[in-house]
Amino acid sequence: MKILRISMTDLTWSEEELKSEYAALGGRALTSRIVFDEVIGTAHPLGSNNKLVFANGVLTGSLASSAERVSVGAKSPLTGGIKESNSGGTAGLKQGRLGYRAIVVEGIRDDMQIVHISKDGVRFESADWILGKPLSEAANLLDEKFGKHISYYMIGSSGEHKMNLAGIAVKDKDGSPTRFLGRGGLGAVAGSKGVKAIVLDDAGIDRLRPKQPEQFRAAVKRYTEWLQENPATGKSFPDYGTAGLVRTTNRLGALPTFNFRTGSFDKHEAISGETLRETILERGGAGTPTHACMPGCIIRCSNIYPDEAGNKITTPIEYENIGLLGSNLGIGSLDEIAELNRLCNEYGVDTIETGGAIGVLMEAGVLPFGDVEGAIQLLHDVHAGRPMGRIIGGGAALVGKLYGVYRVPVVKGQSMPAYDPRAIKGLGVTYATSPMGADHTAGQTIRAQIDHHKAEGQVEVSRNAQETVIIFDSLGMCYFGASAVAGRWDGLAEIISAYVGEAVTGDEIMQMAKETLTIEHAFNRSAGFTHVDDRLPEHFYTETNPASGTVFDVNEMEVLSIGVEGYR
Amino acid sequence: MKILRISMTDLTWSEEELKSEYAALGGRALTSRIVFDEVIGTAHPLGSNNKLVFANGVLTGSLASSAERVSVGAKSPLTGGIKESNSGGTAGLKQGRLGYRAIVVEGIRDDMQIVHISKDGVRFESADWILGKPLSEAANLLDEKFGKHISYYMIGSSGEHKMNLAGIAVKDKDGSPTRFLGRGGLGAVAGSKGVKAIVLDDAGIDRLRPKQPEQFRAAVKRYTEWLQENPATGKSFPDYGTAGLVRTTNRLGALPTFNFRTGSFDKHEAISGETLRETILERGGAGTPTHACMPGCIIRCSNIYPDEAGNKITTPIEYENIGLLGSNLGIGSLDEIAELNRLCNEYGVDTIETGGAIGVLMEAGVLPFGDVEGAIQLLHDVHAGRPMGRIIGGGAALVGKLYGVYRVPVVKGQSMPAYDPRAIKGLGVTYATSPMGADHTAGQTIRAQIDHHKAEGQVEVSRNAQETVIIFDSLGMCYFGASAVAGRWDGLAEIISAYVGEAVTGDEIMQMAKETLTIEHAFNRSAGFTHVDDRLPEHFYTETNPASGTVFDVNEMEVLSIGVEGYR
Repeated sequence: MKILRISMTDLTWSEEELKSEYAALGGRALTSRIVFDEVIGTAHPLGSNNKLVFANGVLTGSLASSAERVSVGAKSPLTGGIKESNSGGTAGLKQGRLGYRAIVVEGIRDDMQIVHISKDGVRFESADWILGKPLSEAANLLDEKFGKHISYYMIGSSGEHKMNLAGIAVKDKDGSPTRFLGRGGLGAVAGSKGVKAIVLDDAGIDRLRPKQPEQFRAAVKRYTEWLQENPATGKSFPDYGTAGLVRTTNRLGALPTFNFRTGSFDKHEAISGETLRETILERGGAGTPTHACMPGCIIRCSNIYPDEAGNKITTPIEYENIGLLGSNLGIGSLDEIAELNRLCNEYGVDTIETGGAIGVLMEAGVLPFGDVEGAIQLLHDVHAGRPMGRIIGGGAALVGKLYGVYRVPVVKGQSMPAYDPRAIKGLGVTYATSPMGADHTAGQTIRAQIDHHKAEGQVEVSRNAQETVIIFDSLGMCYFGASAVAGRWDGLAEIISAYVGEAVTGDEIMQMAKETLTIEHAFNRSAGFTHVDDRLPEHFYTETNPASGTVFDVNEMEVLSIGVEGYR
Repeated sequence: MKILRISMTDLTWSEEELKSEYAALGGRALTSRIVFDEVIGTAHPLGSNNKLVFANGVLTGSLASSAERVSVGAKSPLTGGIKESNSGGTAGLKQGRLGYRAIVVEGIRDDMQIVHISKDGVRFESADWILGKPLSEAANLLDEKFGKHISYYMIGSSGEHKMNLAGIAVKDKDGSPTRFLGRGGLGAVAGSKGVKAIVLDDAGIDRLRPKQPEQFRAAVKRYTEWLQENPATGKSFPDYGTAGLVRTTNRLGALPTFNFRTGSFDKHEAISGETLRETILERGGAGTPTHACMPGCIIRCSNIYPDEAGNKITTPIEYENIGLLGSNLGIGSLDEIAELNRLCNEYGVDTIETGGAIGVLMEAGVLPFGDVEGAIQLLHDVHAGRPMGRIIGGGAALVGKLYGVYRVPVVKGQSMPAYDPRAIKGLGVTYATSPMGADHTAGQTIRAQIDHHKAEGQVEVSRNAQETVIIFDSLGMCYFGASAVAGRWDGLAEIISAYVGEAVTGDEIMQMAKETLTIEHAFNRSAGFTHVDDRLPEHFYTETNPASGTVFDVNEMEVLSIGVEGYR
């Protein structure tokens, strides 16, 4: 495997062998390591000292179930700290086949380019002809020009505008640009570098094969059995997707409602996973409740949501979208959520940050809660770069600053995902301490065997989750497999060993995860973060969530022990 | 002297004697000490844990020349750190006569109140009838209702909107609300507390008298002679005001132009202090080039700028306004600057932050440099709270984030005043290291005997200036006296001793200044600041100022030695 370096300033490229100390790293472990090694902490996120790193997982390309994810990393314009975001889709696989464990994008430029990567090398061409278009349209144009077999990373209009809520789209297995490297505004970093799209063209390249095919097949078979036996990955996710969580979080008082105010929502049944499944099955047509976001995944938590005539509106409607674009905005209709979701995808924005930002704007009274037409208009404003779009485009923290709002549900400048931290306190600990800012994927605790309303034990649960997820993020695997693996790291290690042909142990991959967290926090210290950044917004400590009857009250010293000052 | 505490949550008040450890403190030394003692570092700036402290100087009320200034302090919503801002006008004097060394405003509320303070105590009444009006209009209404003898602190529409660029207006000696506690967004803090205005009604209260009148007269007489003998305070300031600096900074390459780009301006003569004086004298009428901002000041650096018919447009046109609202925006007309200045005053915004924010917006290409009509429209948008007004209202740093701009001339989130730090490097050191963020009044070095283009010696010059200014800020004295005093602190100490009737030495007041700086940095550490915050924006280190031929290259380790990690 190689690293591909691209200078956007000069429009040149070069290859280098993966250094030996990077050989065992993939995904988040590799993006964070390269950012730590090559980006100074004080770099302006949109300047030439920042780098944008796409790294696939150690197992990406293997076609083991749910192992085709790809990570992107950089210093984030949203948080000001190190950032990794990962996604399914087909790009990781193609990048792997092209032979690049990592693509490091350097430099900045004003115009926008398409970077075309194939077995013949790297070509650059102006992206003018696909700028300013909805992503589905731009994607079709790329397919027409370069062939349907390609994959890509691509920013939408929000990324062209260098907005904090811009993500990077990845082509899904059905050809639509609807998987997202969503969080942390890394689409703005791509925009600053003049990268509209990186096209990954693997024509004429053979698939990747495991070094020890028989052992690999056996290890993957066992992993697949674990996934099938687990009630979440084997049953709930395929049936209801992540939306199956709506009832759970509403019961716990953890559903975000009205800018993270009340914890439960009187219209929650209308937006539950059960209603979602029924609606999709009733309407039929292009809709499906069970859909894989990447080749070979058996969890298939994605879905395709159709309109009443059976035509596809959007894919996927996930729990986070329901929570942030729905209940958090006082919106209790799946069709309305689907339309907002579709527009977020078309304009290339992070649905979580967008819902958080609109929620704060509703708290400010600029538009009322429940105003779906107003929310739709705001998304069009984002696309066009109009003033209200710029305001939303800055993300929830900046909306709060511009309107003098006190209740702003962010940590390290990043919007909270769809779990009230007063009601699922382990996630509150993750929000507070993760180097990524508020991010459920950085340490999800909802499946932990613990009373989520109690303060005790949450720090340990969060620490375990934060370390565990890095294993998955680094292998290119979906972290939904975590509860199925249940700590049997040697089982995962056997898949890796057989795939790369070198013996790896469970302890070694856990060590790699801890080291990754350590360097991420070290980067953040060099960017100016202190324990003061490892906090929730003030009001979560003082205002009781009426549904759970709780405030966030996990022991502060314990929380800090796993934050930026804890990992040294 | 007493402290008055006002709870805006409950609309109650109480008095307490000044603690013995506060007895020698006034102005900035006292606001910073109370903020340090009573506000936790993690407090939300617009929440009930923040406090807004108005403190007059130890000499305020004495009518010694240029000693009637008042300070306001709080945790700043703009910088996130401790903030002090001070102003001339008549409020300090009235507050002193009312017997309050400090007024501490606590709590928050949603509606807006007028707080009326007189010898009969504190009354609260709804401010509804003066909301949303230009400040001159609201000020007339206050005078009509409460009598022309009152003074006040009052926020404009920008403060009602809780915008980061909102200052707090103070009545000047001629009755207009045009002196400003301008910087750091403390008008937004007042807005969050529901304080539209604090009326200071000293009817029936005798003037303050020195304890040792004879010694006091003698000491003040000597100080007055120093001011008269000094070429700046005795001649240049009365003739040209601060605008006399335009030629100097243009020659040095330090004039901010086109968002701090080129360092000199081809139209600088049209906006120089000399042209300003000639224009005012030619037009006559209400205009005057020599005008005191507070009772008894002999420096009289203020002015009243008239239109061609001799009617007053605005007061005062200062160097900072010319630099930020003029050359920094590519605007080379005093009349245009005067109109922008007038609107800033009417809407209660900091002219420096406003000019900085519009400059970044021009850099982003939203409107062209030189577009005065566009700039005027933006100020009306601020007043009305429209989207573009909200964007500008966040200040330059947030405009930069919303538009993905790389060159944003701020430190700790606050706009640089009108000196390019590559050409006056001592000021660059002050910008980088002051606990206040980029602020020339926190350590002005332009009069230091040093080659401003050279890196050597600037840290020492800035450190001296930063410590010295606190002496003035704490006495209620204008720091323009610093070059006249020229380190003869015992001479100042004699004024204080005679006024308060207790012996104070020059060493003691210098010690007080150093302690103030130490606790300000300590507060900022508790708010999460590190040495990473003690930096200029990246591009000032790498992009050469074409007029001076320099970048900012003062030794980084030396700079850090007087920043947040240096004062311990």
